[in-house]
Amino acid sequence: DPSLKLFSLNSNHKLAEDIAAHIGTPLGKCSVNTFSDGEIQINIEESIRGCDVYVIQSTSAPVNQHLMEVLIMIDALKRASARSINIVMPYYGYARQDRKARSREPITAKLVADLLETAGADRVITLDLHAPQIQAFFDIPIDHLQAVGLLSDYFASKQLEDIVVVSPDHGGVTRARKMADRLKAPIGIIDKRRPRPNVAEVMNIVGNIEGRTAILIDDIIDTAGTITLAANALIENGAKEVYACCTHPVLSGPAIERIDNSAIKELVVTNTITLPSEKNIEKITQLSVAPLIGEALIRVHEQQSVSSLFD
Amino acid sequence: DPSLKLFSLNSNHKLAEDIAAHIGTPLGKCSVNTFSDGEIQINIEESIRGCDVYVIQSTSAPVNQHLMEVLIMIDALKRASARSINIVMPYYGYARQDRKARSREPITAKLVADLLETAGADRVITLDLHAPQIQAFFDIPIDHLQAVGLLSDYFASKQLEDIVVVSPDHGGVTRARKMADRLKAPIGIIDKRRPRPNVAEVMNIVGNIEGRTAILIDDIIDTAGTITLAANALIENGAKEVYACCTHPVLSGPAIERIDNSAIKELVVTNTITLPSEKNIEKITQLSVAPLIGEALIRVHEQQSVSSLFD
Ligand SMILES: Nc1ncnc2c1ncn2[C@@H]1O[C@H](COP(=O)(O)O)[C@@H](O)[C@H]1O
Ligand SMILES: Nc1ncnc2c1ncn2[C@@H]1O[C@H](COP(=O)(O)O)[C@@H](O)[C@H]1O
Repeated sequence: DPSLKLFSLNSNHKLAEDIAAHIGTPLGKCSVNTFSDGEIQINIEESIRGCDVYVIQSTSAPVNQHLMEVLIMIDALKRASARSINIVMPYYGYARQDRKARSREPITAKLVADLLETAGADRVITLDLHAPQIQAFFDIPIDHLQAVGLLSDYFASKQLEDIVVVSPDHGGVTRARKMADRLKAPIGIIDKRRPRPNVAEVMNIVGNIEGRTAILIDDIIDTAGTITLAANALIENGAKEVYACCTHPVLSGPAIERIDNSAIKELVVTNTITLPSEKNIEKITQLSVAPLIGEALIRVHEQQSVSSLFD
Repeated sequence: DPSLKLFSLNSNHKLAEDIAAHIGTPLGKCSVNTFSDGEIQINIEESIRGCDVYVIQSTSAPVNQHLMEVLIMIDALKRASARSINIVMPYYGYARQDRKARSREPITAKLVADLLETAGADRVITLDLHAPQIQAFFDIPIDHLQAVGLLSDYFASKQLEDIVVVSPDHGGVTRARKMADRLKAPIGIIDKRRPRPNVAEVMNIVGNIEGRTAILIDDIIDTAGTITLAANALIENGAKEVYACCTHPVLSGPAIERIDNSAIKELVVTNTITLPSEKNIEKITQLSVAPLIGEALIRVHEQQSVSSLFD
């Protein structure tokens, strides 16, 4: 289909290539560089006039650089008369700043939505937003895909026995429930509680984990504090072994060291965020969301609804 | 005046302090940090409800970081019920991307204007835009100050004799004319020309420079290629000595080394961009725009027009 054009910016070249291969369309030619002073320079090197353009870019670290790349690319595409500008953002940065937790805080997740619309985006396709409410921050259509199927299928293929799917906090129980349904397993919840002010948190485990293989599931693993403490608590409370998984491997600061030193046997993540090669440690398995995103693009381009296709 | 609040972000703390001292208002309390993954975290630590807020931030390098800081700050101020949000941007980054020089280029200077308005800025105060047309990229009021008076006064105080003010290219002749008027000096122009394709450029000097003290003036000095070649050409063609000046010392890449090795005797710049301490080499004199900006803020806050005050 000559009216479909796919472009990769700098966050996820390998994923973009895999999506292009899945769809059977080559990546469009464009160069994304920086001038000597650090300003971004974008050159689109083929005509896109009248085309439906899909731009693949996660706003992972360096987040401000990656966000400006996509905004500038949208501006260039708009001025070059694209028919539609569709942003494939496998990881949506700033999603945790989605409400005013204290006075005078910004709501940067909403700001980012407004910036994308102002630049000229017509549609956003993303995966596992930190809060599903972020969908409503947009006035343009947004397709919200989920990786829980992909993660569940991987664990199903391992044929583990006596599984319990555990949410590391109250906020993630719905996600754990979805995986548990797919694996026909019960769920557990780590229930953190501070008994009195200025006293260390107590990790209480809700659900039966005794002698079982626990699978911790979260959307984002950032500094890995929560997930590694949870894993260790599960082992101390009688779990046989602990796996962990998440959609978005942010893995900043001490994350890798913490995971290495934790009770986690294997950490399963997706490629919405590129792992630096030095972070490809033995414990981490990375699954590709290229088929998931590729199918969504095909359906979006055929103008069918994708919103409920991948639950 | 308790309704006036001044905040500094991370690009120009010293300049912000100087402006605050000039106005006689302390800087507002806010913290601008990054989370472990590089996302910006802003906390405004005092009430600004009903206030006219002035935020001081240049979008100098790291430009994308500094731009996101100001956008997120605007979002936080808006949600905290500021009466007006006024952005003091001494250096406006991405100003050179102000037109489509080739097909399918972005116009990032316009995108930045749109992003500032979308975030919620009510007014922008800036200095020596690379092109004055950028004023029209905004639908909100913009005050455009000029540093040519400050730079001229400095050279006047040196009591140099037989001055000629030289523009390093055709685009800067109006600026050179303004300085020449103030110094009661003639002007010169460096006229670069490529005699045939694939042949080196020839530097032709228009105007009489023989035995004179030349002052080169530009708006931005970035990699310093243009200005140092111009300085050397002036000396080779009989100028007695060469000074150079600009408003915005971007000074990226090889700039410092080139200036050091050039015929430039002294380079005079302003503090719209903070020079890293290691760049404070002997040849560079930095003048403060704090009084210029301070006066403009006082007049803006008194709701008077500043647009023509500082020519
Ligand atoms: N990049 C980030 N890294 C760590 N914490 C963040 C980040 N962005 C936002 N937050 C904080 O995380 C909290 C939201 O996380 P959650 O409760 O998991 O939704 C908010 O209080 C934010 O201040
Ligand atoms: N940050 C930058 N560094 C170097 N060149 C740039 C930068 N931004 C834009 N340009 C280019 O500089 C040219 C504009 O410079 P000028 O002719 O001096 O207005 C345009 O062709 C741009 O592509």
